[in-house]
Amino acid sequence: MRILGIDPGLRHTGWGVIEQAGSRLTHIAHGVIRINHELPLAARLGGIHREIADLSRAYWPDFAGIEETLVNANPRSALKLGQARGAAMAALHGAGLNVLEFSPRTIKLAVVGTGAADKTQVSFMVSRLLPKAGKMSSDAADALACAICTAHHAVALKKGAA
Amino acid sequence: MRILGIDPGLRHTGWGVIEQAGSRLTHIAHGVIRINHELPLAARLGGIHREIADLSRAYWPDFAGIEETLVNANPRSALKLGQARGAAMAALHGAGLNVLEFSPRTIKLAVVGTGAADKTQVSFMVSRLLPKAGKMSSDAADALACAICTAHHAVALKKGAA
Repeated sequence: MRILGIDPGLRHTGWGVIEQAGSRLTHIAHGVIRINHELPLAARLGGIHREIADLSRAYWPDFAGIEETLVNANPRSALKLGQARGAAMAALHGAGLNVLEFSPRTIKLAVVGTGAADKTQVSFMVSRLLPKAGKMSSDAADALACAICTAHHAVALKKGAA
Repeated sequence: MRILGIDPGLRHTGWGVIEQAGSRLTHIAHGVIRINHELPLAARLGGIHREIADLSRAYWPDFAGIEETLVNANPRSALKLGQARGAAMAALHGAGLNVLEFSPRTIKLAVVGTGAADKTQVSFMVSRLLPKAGKMSSDAADALACAICTAHHAVALKKGAA
């Protein structure tokens, strides 16, 4: 089973693809979609949508996981992040993927074992769980963490459906 | 010149198409995209994207106009609206349209002549300016108001470019 994790943002959208076979996770690819912030907003959102549609076609994942956005941010940040997230989720659905959403706490719990982990701990554990991933930015690490969390839940979903 | 106006929302997205020739505006079509709110979020956003892509293919507009979101809302509302807006704008850009954004104040000023107009005044003036439009919901009226505002500005843009 193949999983695409997405950490959406208007400037940087982290992504990571992993393969799951039983309890074994394998790193396939990761990266960051960087959109020129001088472009008009519609072009930036169109760019996020197109890049994610391209990733879905390139890697054929079965599931996608995306981080839920905390709403304790200020309304301006929430609106910006919401727009990026809307473009990303529309692309994942348009590619025919099952899209699961997870709170930051659930992702940290799945990867580090505590919902209160910080970014450094998440990056460290992602590197431990996916040793072939090599060097990565924190956006890509967050996306891979989301993919790992999705893998755990997708297995449970598949068992439930069987 | 043909213009598509969009009033995005996670439940109801109003849309309206007008044709402009000189100072003459003609109503072409309007409607509301209604997404089943019991669907998962990704499916709702994917639905908004697909419907707007379909409208763009059906009516071949030259320009699209979309209302800017005020950020005085609470973060939870801003996030929801942002997601719908992100899916809509990604679709408009993906269809190759020039997308213009206008504040609610600019739209009211263009349609009613005062930036402080209320919804009833906007609906009334849209019906006056586009007599063939007939009955419409306030979401569709807002979308047509945005299309009228876009028409005014698109003319100025075209003149500037000439």
